Order: sequence, then structure tokens, then C-alpha cells
Amino acid sequence: MVLNLQALAATLGALLGFLAVALLLPAGVALVYGEPHWQPFVLSALLTAAVGGLLWLLGGRRPHEPGIREGFAIVALAWLVLALFGALPFVLGGVLAYTDAFFETMSGFTTTGATILGGARTPEIESLPRAYLFWRSLAHWLGGMGIIVLTLAILPILGVGGMQLFKAEVPGPTADKLTPRVRETARRLWLIYVGLTALEMLLLLPVMDWFDALNHAFATMATGGFSTKNGSIGQFGSAYVEWVITLFMLLAGANFALHYRLLHGQWRSVVQDTELRVYLLIVAGATVLITLGIWAPLQSEGNYQTYPALTDALRHAAFQAASIITTTGFGTADYEQWSPLAVGVLFLLFFVGGMAGSTGGGIKVVRHVLLFKNSFRELKQLVHPRAIVPVRLNGRMVSDEVMRNVLSFFVLYFGLLGVGTLALSAQGVDLLSAFGAALSCLGNIGPAFGAMGPAENYAHLPGLAKWVLAVLMLIGRLEIFTVLILVTRAFWRR
Amino acid sequence: MVLNLQALAATLGALLGFLAVALLLPAGVALVYGEPHWQPFVLSALLTAAVGGLLWLLGGRRPHEPGIREGFAIVALAWLVLALFGALPFVLGGVLAYTDAFFETMSGFTTTGATILGGARTPEIESLPRAYLFWRSLAHWLGGMGIIVLTLAILPILGVGGMQLFKAEVPGPTADKLTPRVRETARRLWLIYVGLTALEMLLLLPVMDWFDALNHAFATMATGGFSTKNGSIGQFGSAYVEWVITLFMLLAGANFALHYRLLHGQWRSVVQDTELRVYLLIVAGATVLITLGIWAPLQSEGNYQTYPALTDALRHAAFQAASIITTTGFGTADYEQWSPLAVGVLFLLFFVGGMAGSTGGGIKVVRHVLLFKNSFRELKQLVHPRAIVPVRLNGRMVSDEVMRNVLSFFVLYFGLLGVGTLALSAQGVDLLSAFGAALSCLGNIGPAFGAMGPAENYAHLPGLAKWVLAVLMLIGRLEIFTVLILVTRAFWRR
Repeated sequence: MVLNLQALAATLGALLGFLAVALLLPAGVALVYGEPHWQPFVLSALLTAAVGGLLWLLGGRRPHEPGIREGFAIVALAWLVLALFGALPFVLGGVLAYTDAFFETMSGFTTTGATILGGARTPEIESLPRAYLFWRSLAHWLGGMGIIVLTLAILPILGVGGMQLFKAEVPGPTADKLTPRVRETARRLWLIYVGLTALEMLLLLPVMDWFDALNHAFATMATGGFSTKNGSIGQFGSAYVEWVITLFMLLAGANFALHYRLLHGQWRSVVQDTELRVYLLIVAGATVLITLGIWAPLQSEGNYQTYPALTDALRHAAFQAASIITTTGFGTADYEQWSPLAVGVLFLLFFVGGMAGSTGGGIKVVRHVLLFKNSFRELKQLVHPRAIVPVRLNGRMVSDEVMRNVLSFFVLYFGLLGVGTLALSAQGVDLLSAFGAALSCLGNIGPAFGAMGPAENYAHLPGLAKWVLAVLMLIGRLEIFTVLILVTRAFWRR
Repeated sequence: MVLNLQALAATLGALLGFLAVALLLPAGVALVYGEPHWQPFVLSALLTAAVGGLLWLLGGRRPHEPGIREGFAIVALAWLVLALFGALPFVLGGVLAYTDAFFETMSGFTTTGATILGGARTPEIESLPRAYLFWRSLAHWLGGMGIIVLTLAILPILGVGGMQLFKAEVPGPTADKLTPRVRETARRLWLIYVGLTALEMLLLLPVMDWFDALNHAFATMATGGFSTKNGSIGQFGSAYVEWVITLFMLLAGANFALHYRLLHGQWRSVVQDTELRVYLLIVAGATVLITLGIWAPLQSEGNYQTYPALTDALRHAAFQAASIITTTGFGTADYEQWSPLAVGVLFLLFFVGGMAGSTGGGIKVVRHVLLFKNSFRELKQLVHPRAIVPVRLNGRMVSDEVMRNVLSFFVLYFGLLGVGTLALSAQGVDLLSAFGAALSCLGNIGPAFGAMGPAENYAHLPGLAKWVLAVLMLIGRLEIFTVLILVTRAFWRR
């Protein structure tokens, strides 16, 4: 066997043990609120712990130092296993069928935020007991936690997704072994993650009760998008809440290594970071363009939703722009009712994604920066065929391997988008909805267009379509290569 | 001055002289049919010849050997100038306003086939005198002629678009000088082009009159798409015509260097050509899938157009698949009335394009082959980080420069698609229509989706949107780099 199955079993067993503990938290929420719904969570925790314990025994009851192949397998299986077992409470509680429960849970752990709740045969969000709502948000938050460690500590070591660029960005022990370095990096980043979540919750408390504040802080910092309200953030009707969440979405979509440096007083290197500048520039530009498209005095024709007050137009524009670029997916408006200019700008933001090293999904800003620079280089090269024109980022030369990796990522991203669109089309979903849903799930965003627009949900899709989209969420969340490598022959051959 | 303006002026002058002669052909058609519409064509020819003559005088009354910079400038300006002057007859004849005339003519010379005819303020296709209809088809045919030489003889020398792969495919004098080699290659390829056009015309004559047969042969071999009928090919109601045109669309979308080799008995190298195999495989696969989506016995629900007879379903599927992949744009059905599966498959074909070295536009099959192989290589590389894994095509290694060029092309293609979508959105075009039109024009296809679907036209767009789309046609037709290089600083600096 090419893979060290013992290492795999031990790690996944430990992960399930951790999930079992996490499942007890919503049970606690149910008890606190005097709801009877602690039972499916406790039962799920026991089941999960039992399977986890079995795997741990099979794995030799000790952690293993995983090799490169085990690393890939563990990463892909981790999210899959979390979703498979994390879906149990919904089923055991009689709330959802398994396909729907799996979709919702995968959407949670991948920080996508696409929901099947609110359909003809699924409950409304607000009709759910608090334990389930909390579990959705917690899945986001834990998923986001995993992603930060994955992209800033594990993937660079596996050499995936152009993230090697960030290899040495967070200082930590530079031992060759994977585990101690990951552990130390994780600890530092999690402190920031927890701190920002707590801060956001505090800032939301003046308007929300603690339950809503905590849930929305979880969903924001993970760039998830699940809300406890049918009408998402817009339902609170508070400009203050909307601006606070806009700010924290942008913080969550920023590179956590930059947050770390900021905390250590390295202002200059943060301010000069090219990706950060481009990220903020895109948000600002998009906000201005969307405002032009929804501010009432500028609209002459068409039956589109507009806002007479500039402050309202600006707030809705900034919120939706931040929500889509960071791949959060919260909403304060049904953007499909907006003018084509506003919709067009948001559509392009669906292709951008957050910064690398954030909890945001999508293609990522740094890849766009590198792709742009590379295209420019290519044009220069045509004029000067024999010149050597390097691509630089933050003053450092970008190696050809990293560049090729970024280019391949882009190609695979669009390839998967095409496959996803076709798979949904084959199941009777119209073109715009199919393309939008594939794009939204692959980028871990949430809302899409047409039948899966921001005022709709994913409940009405055929079962197979939900599995396809769940797989797209997984592949997109894990930077594509990590999952696709498992289906190559090279991976399974010595 | 960086550019040799004399060389530029002389070449463009000669081109305009050639255009002036071409403009006399529709005048002849008018005279033959006893229509009075020879006048705008003769007047346009005189104007064009005058400007051309002036440029020729400024250029020193002799051909120049252009350098690499002049090569790029000439290629981009050639198509622009052809469209600018080729639009004159429509305006002088009082048929169209200049913006519409320019759009239609650019659509002609770039072999796109997107039409503004049939709108509220533009005439129906069939109401136009024959001279204008002939001019539209002739623009296609001449544009296709130019493209074959461009992609197989000129661009490889300029090092553009990954076409260096085909550098030595068509035997010819291998002198270092550009002109003699281009001339000899052009002569051989044009013979094939003319021969196939004549053959198609002959095959169409049993059903069509000679005028329709000639026009449709012109439009087919150029993968253009302008028809002399409001209802395109479907209007002839002839299965025979539809199969003949399907066949010739596929021939026109195939690499002309392969046609050349076939004529010289090199069967084996043609049959083993990877791009050809993939091209035919995609057409076959798409035809099967579309048939599954439109054959009545297989459709259970939805209000979509279906065909009870398998032969009809297959014919319409094959025709539309060939029409879109080759970027011709002829139609025998309104595919927007088809089921999502059929529409989804066609949508993906919009991203494929013909073979390199054909008259087809789009991304091109060979680029997809290389992108796929490269992604696979990238995955292999992750498992074996230190291995050297080359990408091969037809047994030859593909250099890193070619690969990078192909990858950059793909990125720029999607970048332009985004810019085009945004530009149309800003002018009030809804998302699906804007995205579809930008995709269709960039790929030189013709019909799109929504407001620019196969049963609609481009007449109703605002003027600025027409110019944007015309520029996309130009950039797409000239393999992107050729045009974009003109706006880089490196090009204009010594």
C-alpha cells in the first residue's frame, strides 16, 4: 500500500474525537435554553466518538508523522469526514434528510454558507431550535479555524496552490518536522481568530442578543454566511450592525499573517503589502461602481431597486461587495433586483475571492495579482523575445514553479466550473442558475443567481445536484490540487 | 519614432487598394441583378482607393520588410482599417448608421457573424439588396483567408499565441525573410480554401440558387455565420443542406495545415494528430449529449422544444454543436428553447473554439489540450516534487515558453470576458445577455444568450456597447496578444 493507513486512521480518529467534543457544545446550548434538542447532538457525539476511537485504535493509539501522500489524503478526508458525521444531528433530530443535512454541514465546514433551509420540504431558518442554528455557525467557525492553519501552515509544506509564497511569513520554529511548526503557527493564528471573533461579538451586542451576536461573529470571521435569520443581516434593520459586519468581513478576508504582523507592530510591511492594497482597491472600486448603479438620483430607466439616500446606497454597496469578495455571502439586499451595472460588478467579484491566508475562498486576490503581472510579462516578452523578465511580488522574485502553479490553479478552477455547470444543467437547472451555483459553491460564497439567488435557497435542487455542489465546495475550499491529486495515478503508484 | 511609419503606411495603403478592388465585386453583383445599388460600392471603392493611394505614396511607393514591431501594428491595424472602410457602402447607401455599419463589417471581417440586422431601426436581412448581402459574405470569406495566413504563417514568426507549435508544419521556403515564406505558405493554403469553398457551393446548388449557395459557402468556410435568410440555415428546411453545412463547418474549423497534409497523402500524421482527435471527440460527445437533451422520448418534464424523430434530434444537435465549436454561428433551431442539458453543453462549447490554424475563433482546441496536460503535470509534480515531467504534444516536447504563453492567453481571455461583461452591464444589459454577448464576440461566434440569443440580434444595444463588442471581436480574432501588445509601454519604448 502506498499510503500509511495507520497514520491516516490515527489522524482521522483524533479528528473525530475532536468533532465529538464539538458536537456537545450545541447540546449545551439546548440545555441552557431548555430545549429538548440536546439529544440528537449527544447521540451524534457518541457515535462519532465511537468511530473515532475505533480508528484511533486501528492507528496504533499514537500520532504519526505523516508523509507527503498522507498529508494530502488527511486534508481531503478531514473535511469530508467532518461533514459526513457533522450531518448526523440534523438527521437524528428528524430535521433534515441525509442529503440535505450533508449539504448544509459541508456548506458549514467549508465556510460556504449555501443553505437548503427555507424550501418547500425543509424548515425555515428561524423555525429551527437554537441548538441547530448554533451548530451551523460553529461548523463555519471551526472550518475557518482549520482553513487558516491549512493555508498558512500545512499547504505551503505540501507545496500546494502557490501558497509557498507565504512559507516563512509567520515566524515559528523552523524545524523540518511538520508537527511542531504547524502547532506553533496554529496557536498564534488562532489567538488572532478568537480575539477578532470576540471583538466582533462585543460590537454586535448593542443591537443583537448574545446568541445572535455569537452566531454572526462565528459566521463572519469564517467568511461563512449562515445567519440565524431568514432575512440574513438585512433583517436586523441596523446600519450600525451592517457597517460592523462589513468591517469584520473585510478583516476575515484579509491574510491572517498580516494581522499577526500588525499585532507585532510591523506596520510598514503590512501597509506595503501588494495583495492587501489590491484587495482594498477592488473593494473600494466595486463599492463606488455599485453605488453608481443603485443610488436613485443616477438611475434614469428600468424597474430596478434603488436607494434615494446616498448613505443607504453606499452602505448596501459596501456590504454586498465585501460579502461577495470575501466569499461570506451575508445579505442586506436582493442584489438580483439591482441594475445591471451593480449586478455585473458583483458577478465579477464572484471570481475574485479573499486574500490568501484568510478564511475567504475563491481564486484569491494574490493569484489575480500574479496572473495580471504574468500576462504583462508575456506581452513584454513578445517585444523583447530574448530578455529575461521576472515577475516580482512585494519585491521578491516569483519562481517559475509558483507561477505555473497559479496558472494551473486558474485553469482547473474554470474547468471545474464548467464541469459543475454541465452537471447541474444535466439535472434540469437553467444555465444562469447552474453556472451561478457552481461558481458560488466552488468559491465557497453561498448565494448565487437565478434559482439560487440571494432571496432563494438550494432546497429545490435534485439530490444529485446537491452532492455535486457539496463536492465543489470541498474541492474549492481545499485549493483544488489537494483533492484532485487523490484521483491521479501518480499518487497511487510508488 | 519606434515604428517605421513608412512601412506601416505602405502596407496599409496596399491593403486598402486590395479592399477597393474587393468593393467592386458587390457592385458587379448589383449590376448582374439589375439593382441600382452598385453606386455606394463604387463610391466606397473610390474613396478607399484614394486613401490607400495616399498612404502608398507616403510609404515611398514600395513594399517594406517590416520589423517585429511593424508586424504587430500592421496585423492589428489591418482588420481595423478593413472594417472602418468596409463599412462605407452601408452608410453611403443609406442602409445603416455608421456605428451599425462598422459593427456589421467588423463582425464580417472577423468571421464573427453577429448581426445588427432585423432590429426595430435596422432593415430585415432579406429586405436588403443582393449587393449588401454579398458584401457581408465576402467580408467573412476575405477575413477567413486573412486568418489562415495570419495564424499559420505570420503569428508563428511573431511568436504569438502558442502557435509557434505549428511553425514548420506547412512546408515552404525557409528563408529568414518574412515576405517570401508568407507568400508561398499563403498560396498553398488559399488553394485549399478556395477549393473547399467551391466544393461546398456545388454541393449546395441542388437546393439553393447560385447566389445563396455562394454566400453560404463563403460564410461556412470562414466560420462566419452571416446568412442571406432571416431564419439562417433552418429556413431552407432541408436536411441535406444542414448535413452538408455541418460537414463543411467542421472542415473549416479544422487545421488547414492538416488539409494540406491530407492532400499530399500524409494520412497517418493527420489521423494521429492529437488536436484533431480531441476536436472530433468533443463534437461527437456534445452531439450525443445534446441529442439526449432534445429527443422527445427522453424528456419527461419542462416546457422545452423537443424532436420526436431521433434523426431530427441528431441533425439539430450535430449542426448546433458544429456551429458553436467552430465559431460559425449558423442556426437551424433556437437553442434557448432547448432543455438545460442541451443549453449547458452548447454553453461549454462557446469556450472551446476551433482548431488552431483553422478559420475558427475562440480559445482553440489545442490550447485546451495543452492546458489539460499541464494541469495533470502539475498534479504529478506535487507527488514527485523533484521529478521533471514534460508536457508532450504529438510526441514532441512542449517548451515552457509555449506553455506559459498558452496559460497567459487563457487568463487574458477570461480577463477580457470580465471587462466586456462589465462594460455591457454598465450600459444596462442584463447579466446573462452581457456575459453571453462578450463571450460570443470575443470568440467570434455570433449568437449568444438572452437578449442576443440565436433568435435575436445585436441591433437594440446602445451604440457604445456595439463599439465595445466590435473591439472584442478584433482582439479575439487576432489572438489577443497581437492587439494588447500595442498598449504596453515596452512596445513604444526603444
